[in-house]
Amino acid sequence: MTSHEPEDTPELRKLYKDFEDAHLLPLWTQRADLMPDEPSPQAVPYVWKWSTLLPIAERSGELVPVGRGGERRAISLANPGLGGQPYATPTLWAAIQYLGPKEVAPEHRHTQNAFRFVVEGEGVWTVVNGDPVAMRRGDFLLTPGWHFHGHHNTTDRPMAWLDGLDIPFVHYTDTAFFEFGPDEVSSRETPDVSRSERLWAHPGLRPLSGLENTASSPIAAYRWEHTDRALADQLALEDEGHAVTVEPGHAAVRFTNPTTGGDVMPTIRAEFHRLRGGTTTAARREVGSAVWQVFDGEGTVVLGGEERRLSRGDLVVVPSWTPLTWTCDTDLDLFRFADTPIFERLHQARVSVGA
Amino acid sequence: MTSHEPEDTPELRKLYKDFEDAHLLPLWTQRADLMPDEPSPQAVPYVWKWSTLLPIAERSGELVPVGRGGERRAISLANPGLGGQPYATPTLWAAIQYLGPKEVAPEHRHTQNAFRFVVEGEGVWTVVNGDPVAMRRGDFLLTPGWHFHGHHNTTDRPMAWLDGLDIPFVHYTDTAFFEFGPDEVSSRETPDVSRSERLWAHPGLRPLSGLENTASSPIAAYRWEHTDRALADQLALEDEGHAVTVEPGHAAVRFTNPTTGGDVMPTIRAEFHRLRGGTTTAARREVGSAVWQVFDGEGTVVLGGEERRLSRGDLVVVPSWTPLTWTCDTDLDLFRFADTPIFERLHQARVSVGA
Amino acid sequence: MTSHEPEDTPELRKLYKDFEDAHLLPLWTQRADLMPDEPSPQAVPYVWKWSTLLPIAERSGELVPVGRGGERRAISLANPGLGGQPYATPTLWAAIQYLGPKEVAPEHRHTQNAFRFVVEGEGVWTVVNGDPVAMRRGDFLLTPGWHFHGHHNTTDRPMAWLDGLDIPFVHYTDTAFFEFGPDEVSSRETPDVSRSERLWAHPGLRPLSGLENTASSPIAAYRWEHTDRALADQLALEDEGHAVTVEPGHAAVRFTNPTTGGDVMPTIRAEFHRLRGGTTTAARREVGSAVWQVFDGEGTVVLGGEERRLSRGDLVVVPSWTPLTWTCDTDLDLFRFADTPIFERLHQARVSVGA
Amino acid sequence: MTSHEPEDTPELRKLYKDFEDAHLLPLWTQRADLMPDEPSPQAVPYVWKWSTLLPIAERSGELVPVGRGGERRAISLANPGLGGQPYATPTLWAAIQYLGPKEVAPEHRHTQNAFRFVVEGEGVWTVVNGDPVAMRRGDFLLTPGWHFHGHHNTTDRPMAWLDGLDIPFVHYTDTAFFEFGPDEVSSRETPDVSRSERLWAHPGLRPLSGLENTASSPIAAYRWEHTDRALADQLALEDEGHAVTVEPGHAAVRFTNPTTGGDVMPTIRAEFHRLRGGTTTAARREVGSAVWQVFDGEGTVVLGGEERRLSRGDLVVVPSWTPLTWTCDTDLDLFRFADTPIFERLHQARVSVGA
Repeated sequence: MTSHEPEDTPELRKLYKDFEDAHLLPLWTQRADLMPDEPSPQAVPYVWKWSTLLPIAERSGELVPVGRGGERRAISLANPGLGGQPYATPTLWAAIQYLGPKEVAPEHRHTQNAFRFVVEGEGVWTVVNGDPVAMRRGDFLLTPGWHFHGHHNTTDRPMAWLDGLDIPFVHYTDTAFFEFGPDEVSSRETPDVSRSERLWAHPGLRPLSGLENTASSPIAAYRWEHTDRALADQLALEDEGHAVTVEPGHAAVRFTNPTTGGDVMPTIRAEFHRLRGGTTTAARREVGSAVWQVFDGEGTVVLGGEERRLSRGDLVVVPSWTPLTWTCDTDLDLFRFADTPIFERLHQARVSVGA
Repeated sequence: MTSHEPEDTPELRKLYKDFEDAHLLPLWTQRADLMPDEPSPQAVPYVWKWSTLLPIAERSGELVPVGRGGERRAISLANPGLGGQPYATPTLWAAIQYLGPKEVAPEHRHTQNAFRFVVEGEGVWTVVNGDPVAMRRGDFLLTPGWHFHGHHNTTDRPMAWLDGLDIPFVHYTDTAFFEFGPDEVSSRETPDVSRSERLWAHPGLRPLSGLENTASSPIAAYRWEHTDRALADQLALEDEGHAVTVEPGHAAVRFTNPTTGGDVMPTIRAEFHRLRGGTTTAARREVGSAVWQVFDGEGTVVLGGEERRLSRGDLVVVPSWTPLTWTCDTDLDLFRFADTPIFERLHQARVSVGA
Repeated sequence: MTSHEPEDTPELRKLYKDFEDAHLLPLWTQRADLMPDEPSPQAVPYVWKWSTLLPIAERSGELVPVGRGGERRAISLANPGLGGQPYATPTLWAAIQYLGPKEVAPEHRHTQNAFRFVVEGEGVWTVVNGDPVAMRRGDFLLTPGWHFHGHHNTTDRPMAWLDGLDIPFVHYTDTAFFEFGPDEVSSRETPDVSRSERLWAHPGLRPLSGLENTASSPIAAYRWEHTDRALADQLALEDEGHAVTVEPGHAAVRFTNPTTGGDVMPTIRAEFHRLRGGTTTAARREVGSAVWQVFDGEGTVVLGGEERRLSRGDLVVVPSWTPLTWTCDTDLDLFRFADTPIFERLHQARVSVGA
Repeated sequence: MTSHEPEDTPELRKLYKDFEDAHLLPLWTQRADLMPDEPSPQAVPYVWKWSTLLPIAERSGELVPVGRGGERRAISLANPGLGGQPYATPTLWAAIQYLGPKEVAPEHRHTQNAFRFVVEGEGVWTVVNGDPVAMRRGDFLLTPGWHFHGHHNTTDRPMAWLDGLDIPFVHYTDTAFFEFGPDEVSSRETPDVSRSERLWAHPGLRPLSGLENTASSPIAAYRWEHTDRALADQLALEDEGHAVTVEPGHAAVRFTNPTTGGDVMPTIRAEFHRLRGGTTTAARREVGSAVWQVFDGEGTVVLGGEERRLSRGDLVVVPSWTPLTWTCDTDLDLFRFADTPIFERLHQARVSVGA
């Protein structure tokens, strides 16, 4: 077949110039880039070490006040492939947020969906629609879109945690709304358990006052004790001969919305994975991007053929369709979030396991 | 308007006779009965006392062996309005099942959906698809359609419990399939917690090995400790000023399928209600029928205008569209099951509250 | 294994007597009947000949006025297995309705879902929620639950048609509501095409004023010209080598709700089948019951092993799980309705094809 | 409240430098841009005139061959606000495609969803998964993701049409897959009606061979005659006193997937609007972006306060949340497509009408 490359003539140059003037662009010169054979992300696999993040957050705590306008002392992972934007992936935001002793992050709400995951520390309450939610190591906490929320640190010690949001997706798609709330948090109560948990976090039980399904989970906090027990139970059941793990030595749970059984928020999937020491996971590629954080232990991730060594608090970004394998000599606990719900709802999801 | 009553002539009599011979029936002579202004059930409100049920079950235990063929020592409530059929309501079966010391009820499976609710006792394990599930006071246990199941009593004491099924509905609609399993239960293990609970009964957490939705809940046992805590939490939240109860003094949870957030089984809804002493519930009518069992305390039910006094273990049947009110001087705990999922799925559900 | 039959003793007799007095029934004596190995319907396969139905309807037209109270001159098929009830099957009602010259059937509404299918004649308009809908040979017309409707015959000739409803199911489940409307029809207009069709019966097009999904189809009439063309197209495509038929020589369409793509009404499925002369369909069993009417041609149905010969207008009832085969020497057009949506929504549906 | 602006010190500068080195970015310096009070799109409202597009496409036809590699002679609208990318909006691609006499655009498939809309001309068949689909004025034609497709012009005249795809969204989210098919189209047949239409384009009728729901509509072509009639019927019904239009003088239909009643493709909504002369539509803002093309007549669009005059073939781009009003003195026919299904599925959709 002939190449079909048009001859470079003055007429062609004039045509291309006229395209430009008329705000037009030919498909044929850029088809291969626009429509690649398979996902060809600009975002790159990248690791941020907790040992870098925490000190820089602490320095921010000394130099930068938290308050109305800036709203949060959050420092976002900027994927080196994304041209200096504060985006972990094209769709996902990941940041370390830092709140000093007795500090308050004022209330606001936005259409962006948000969560917090706590790799260490405690003493902060996040107040979500007036409900004070304690934050402790291992907890996964939700602030779904358009819920008012603020944070306050009740202790004399600072606290840092991981924030995950769909800011890049919402920004790109021009769907953002934002509204300030009170400068103070609307409740200074410090209960161990939030009202949302007392109403909703009972296995398989739904309050009769909550029979309408909600876009996001009504559970404000998924506590570490439950996650830990679920993972331990899966590995114990595997030991007893039952095929309930993802693959041998690999237990995993997904955080879900109890009103639907689906993902916690419309754009964000969150999971916890536990690998038994000595496990190597099957190589896996998924359409869409993800971020993993090591919660406990040490291990190696192989991403697109390149190995990276990670330990507690380290974060790794997985661009779309990049093959991923985890290996560990000792037990490894991993938190993961991803944008997959977007693509499942739009029938664009694909997964490839093995090979 | 004229009455349109046809004149009683020899020709008309001949016509009606010919209808009969041709297996035909005129609508006009029975329209009002067939299509009443509102539900006009044949089933009647009725109460069975636990003090009657338990002794008669004990006598059955002495006289009737349990085993292959009869399959279960279950004694069903036969609604006095339903002409001697073993049906609590047109759609629901409710029975007291009794298992003597060391007895075994052999394994089988059927398309009928079943549950057990334990008002007292312990020591029996129901084995569901090979998973041994302990039965204890307050527990709600599932055997969804086409799951193999058998029971065995490990103790020297008998045990009795409530069985609920959709036998009448399945029988009427000719949708029943049945299959024998082993005469013995497939597992003699006696764990405190079933495998299904270890995999599924963690609030908001879903195993990655269980991402396909199932028609019925994968949780084999909803434990009393969770139900009790959820109800206590609702009343405590109410005390703290939050409108989370059904109505003042009336807490309630629905047992749900964590893969969908919906009812535990396609044809059966199950709930637990707790009334604070001094509460009178708003009169409520629902399309579809229900059965309530008193779990603890004493109270009065007003059904279709008639009062009945109930205490622990007593069962009351509520026909379709019959107004229902509960009143109690002291705290009252109530288990309830109903056929409402059928009518919600078929867009026939109606509820009327008050007046 | 021993038989486990209890010994017939005075104590046992006393027990059984006490059961009766307490409105209780033992499962073990009736388990096999209640829970058969596979559906064991009381309804029987049965054929009603149009040549019987039409004359008897005509005689009714002479002897029985139509009007308020009786509401309709409808003569229902009473399955010989169902003890004299006016039910074609446990869930479905099928009747021939007859309206004399210039007669009016007054308006009412009910929660029962209804349709009409016209095997011959024309000249009646059914007025559904104020929208006049012409009835003509081959048309399938809807009156979903709780829609007001009446009929009037504008001609000097009588007209008869098939009514299908879920009266038995609604009666059995105690979910019926009924309300009288005006004695006259609310519109005497006689348009060729109803408003509902002008709004909704354009392929793949949905009015922006109708974006809320509805439980039943908003299309009041599915016209023969469309059904006929769809079936002809399927057979033509088959001739051209495309596998678009149910099986060779067997074209079929389902009438659907354009807001969901699902069945026209929550409890009733309706289809049209066209068999090319010389076709024998694969034996098929389905959970749930159905009624077929021959629209055109002649053929043989084999039902539970027994052959019956049918021609235009004849009706045949198919009980649950009864094997069904159609054979025809010349082309055969068949209308069918069934209760399958009930069982699909309740996860009780099963189909077995062949053998 | 104080401004909370951190003091510009050497330490702060060092901190910000260290952020950069560590691929981190602070939220507080860019919060307002990232998370605006309401959507603040970079894309701008813009009009492309058909009188510009068609001649430039004709010149491309002379100078640029169509064939393997470039694949299509498509010239895309490049929104002036989007920095020279070939995107009409952040999510939507709109292009004029041009095929000369006897030319062939080779077959390929991709995960991007595509449609064609024909504002003038005929003589091209698009072959979708082997099914030849004629293209004629007013037709709306689908090529859902991962369907093979090519085009061939059977005439001696060129033809141009509008292509709409989700290329920008798919590119941004890294979800693209692409595969070459044959260089020739797989069928040279030129039927008036495609096989997909013969199987699916009958109002409310679903083939029994097509009972599985599909992510996109199985109807390859929505024909002008149906669209036109549906719109004419709506306006006639309005004239007869029925409130079936969007607003007075404004008829509209949505192209839908008959297997679900939802949008034709998971990411793209398509509609046709007809305004009676003298109509001014209520101002409307929607989350998400849209493209309109004038099919017939002339009118004025007011977009974000600025008026633009449009006539046949002209295209206008509407960024997210930009208020839109149409006015016309004479009848105006408008085709519209939008990315709203993305946001409805992700619970981000908002609409504001009036004021």
